[in-house]
Amino acid sequence: MLFTPQLDDSSRIPHYVQIYEQMKRQMIAGTLSEHTKLPSVRKLADLLGLSTTPVETAYQQLIAEGFIASKPKSGYYVQPLAEQQVDRGGERERKSTVARLQHRDTSSYPYVFYLSRNDFSQFPFALWRRLFNRVLRHEYQELLFYGDPQGEYGLRRELARYLHQLRGVSCSPGQIVIGADQYGLLSLLALLLKARVARVGVENPGYPLIASIFRQNGYEVVPVSLEEDGLNVNELADSGVQLVAVSPSHQYPRGMIMPIAKRLRLLEWAKKTDAYLIEDDYDGEFRYHGRPVPSLQGLAEGTNVIHMGGFSQVLAPAFCVYYMALPESLLASYDLLLRELLLEQSASPLHQKTLELLMREGHFEKHVRRMRNVYRKKHDTLVQAVRKHMGERAVLIGEDAGFHVLLKVEHHLEEKGAFADGKKGRNQCRLGCLYLDAASPGRGCKRISPGLCRD
Amino acid sequence: MLFTPQLDDSSRIPHYVQIYEQMKRQMIAGTLSEHTKLPSVRKLADLLGLSTTPVETAYQQLIAEGFIASKPKSGYYVQPLAEQQVDRGGERERKSTVARLQHRDTSSYPYVFYLSRNDFSQFPFALWRRLFNRVLRHEYQELLFYGDPQGEYGLRRELARYLHQLRGVSCSPGQIVIGADQYGLLSLLALLLKARVARVGVENPGYPLIASIFRQNGYEVVPVSLEEDGLNVNELADSGVQLVAVSPSHQYPRGMIMPIAKRLRLLEWAKKTDAYLIEDDYDGEFRYHGRPVPSLQGLAEGTNVIHMGGFSQVLAPAFCVYYMALPESLLASYDLLLRELLLEQSASPLHQKTLELLMREGHFEKHVRRMRNVYRKKHDTLVQAVRKHMGERAVLIGEDAGFHVLLKVEHHLEEKGAFADGKKGRNQCRLGCLYLDAASPGRGCKRISPGLCRD
Repeated sequence: MLFTPQLDDSSRIPHYVQIYEQMKRQMIAGTLSEHTKLPSVRKLADLLGLSTTPVETAYQQLIAEGFIASKPKSGYYVQPLAEQQVDRGGERERKSTVARLQHRDTSSYPYVFYLSRNDFSQFPFALWRRLFNRVLRHEYQELLFYGDPQGEYGLRRELARYLHQLRGVSCSPGQIVIGADQYGLLSLLALLLKARVARVGVENPGYPLIASIFRQNGYEVVPVSLEEDGLNVNELADSGVQLVAVSPSHQYPRGMIMPIAKRLRLLEWAKKTDAYLIEDDYDGEFRYHGRPVPSLQGLAEGTNVIHMGGFSQVLAPAFCVYYMALPESLLASYDLLLRELLLEQSASPLHQKTLELLMREGHFEKHVRRMRNVYRKKHDTLVQAVRKHMGERAVLIGEDAGFHVLLKVEHHLEEKGAFADGKKGRNQCRLGCLYLDAASPGRGCKRISPGLCRD
Repeated sequence: MLFTPQLDDSSRIPHYVQIYEQMKRQMIAGTLSEHTKLPSVRKLADLLGLSTTPVETAYQQLIAEGFIASKPKSGYYVQPLAEQQVDRGGERERKSTVARLQHRDTSSYPYVFYLSRNDFSQFPFALWRRLFNRVLRHEYQELLFYGDPQGEYGLRRELARYLHQLRGVSCSPGQIVIGADQYGLLSLLALLLKARVARVGVENPGYPLIASIFRQNGYEVVPVSLEEDGLNVNELADSGVQLVAVSPSHQYPRGMIMPIAKRLRLLEWAKKTDAYLIEDDYDGEFRYHGRPVPSLQGLAEGTNVIHMGGFSQVLAPAFCVYYMALPESLLASYDLLLRELLLEQSASPLHQKTLELLMREGHFEKHVRRMRNVYRKKHDTLVQAVRKHMGERAVLIGEDAGFHVLLKVEHHLEEKGAFADGKKGRNQCRLGCLYLDAASPGRGCKRISPGLCRD
């Protein structure tokens, strides 16, 4: 007996879908068994009181999915299936997810000592909307396509100018590479340097992402300890690394600013050993008393400094735009790598274009100045509050720049077991903290950068 | 004799900057030599006719940068510099970039056979602007911060629903991971699977990015050949791989759709050998005659299928939003990896939120239907044009889906050396091509996907 689908004319599901689904279900269930000959298109259409089109379409779909086959001059046949493999409950409910840990669930803390918390109260919402609305238009529909894999030229040009003026970086737009995150840019760098570098030095303590990415990419990673004024250059020279990553503007996490003499020794080491330097300038814009410290990259011509930065602290993380300025010696390899991997740009060209307008029309630098004031006030309030409430029991380290300071808590607090993780008395404290509960240091300290005590 | 800066009162540069810059220049030039004692703050202020504030600020900046040091109860002293390292032309012009190759310079081709060229004429510009303007507001300023590193929950929820309805994918929002590009998601996957997998199978020919990322991450990559209906499963079984990447909805680049019987054999192999499957569903939405083929992932419960897709073809590349649905067996490792690397989300939370609204309010599915019609018409026009102008001299392969077809050109053209790269007669042809110059096949073929002939 021929199988005839039951059509529901009141349903909004098209006839061809109903036919296709019922037949498929029968075949998976085995009630329409393999090698069964199906009715011809015309015959089934007659049976169902339909035109041939929906039946034809359903059959074509079943052919495309391999459920049936058409034998020339013979008809349509059900194909053999390894049916035990089919999920008979094809429409089963999606399972609830396994219990997942919440990332950054900070709702239960009265003061969140998040390490790099932006203040968005001064963000130029209306201006950004206006600029974005200028960018996303039918006339500029090309912007919806894949952008330049290196980053939009217009933004790279503005960045080269800005970095020169505000950070003392000396590079052309052609040296700038844009990406959506530090992970992507550092991975690219790890690929670029593979032929030249085997051992990588990192600050100890330092930003953990850099070490882990190079380690994943097969490099040997050598921690180099810090002195009061930054990286221990003697230890670096002895380590035999060919690349070192530093954060001279505001060391992460210790917060010191590397003095010029040490910068020059570092550059001298790099020149002498033909080594590469990664300058992580993650919050170089925010120095609160005095001008931002100029970059390592601009200090000496022709050294292999890779200057890295981004817009997450200076503007907002949500635009996902980061950049690096490659030394000219790496540009040819970079071009080759782009071609070999056929990489696409990961930072949205729409955000890049909006950012370009923001910079070109002078709004961006105004915003940086405004935010430096906002953060300076918060920074100063924090510093005063710590001094007032904790007095000599705590020492602030690495103040005067960026989004975090280090709080060294005195010995007698440690002895009382004030620290949740039992480690020695260092902890990171978010800028913007207005109050530290000096009366119950245990609780106060637990609130400080929960889960981020790495030092 | 004491060095006294020359101030320009008509300049817009603040006094403290002028003091700082002149002193710094003198120190770098060596005219203010090391160990020189500087005038006290009060003395220099008097000499310059200023309050002490600008002098104090300039000195603090010079201290921060390590040019000078303050000795308690003594005064300020110029520090030793490795001066030969200093770039004396600190203000030098940024160099012009080296001549760079242009990526995707397609302006010189009358017809651009780009492999995945979107048509943006139907893009809902006004609607997207309206939704974006709803998202980027002071009230929602939290959206400017780092988003959920796994991707915004709202978008993941909409995606789980959409993938279930349109692609037959069975997953919860908790299984979906969002990222800005395929490179990032595949890199993450390569890290996730490292403990379980050593050998990876890839389609040959196939999407080159998958092979190169796994190779970079230290995997052995095994090419597995294709049959007329997709991957050779016998060869796969013999290869000893524990992971294979396939594009069953529309093989890249050959274009075939994997029939159900082969899908089930593939799933059976994965289950039997406890292997993983990557299902690359890059253009699964666009099947032109009949319904989209349901995903491999939804066919069998509990197998280790990683379903990957993105919005670049179905909407626009410029939003940089891609996703993968992980099998539940990988979720615990994924959580660990997130915590270990402290990874941030690379796809803009603002675009993610806008996309969520687009999907939740039903606009997205309407757009997909509209675009399927647009591309179907182009596809049909192309197919007809090839048949009309090339007749039996060319065979179309992998038609009826996606953004590309394969054009197999007959033997006599090859013999004439019609192909720029001298390879055998396969080439990829962009959907939307309306005309192939049959009279001068050499030129015609050179125009076909320049630089992308990989088969």
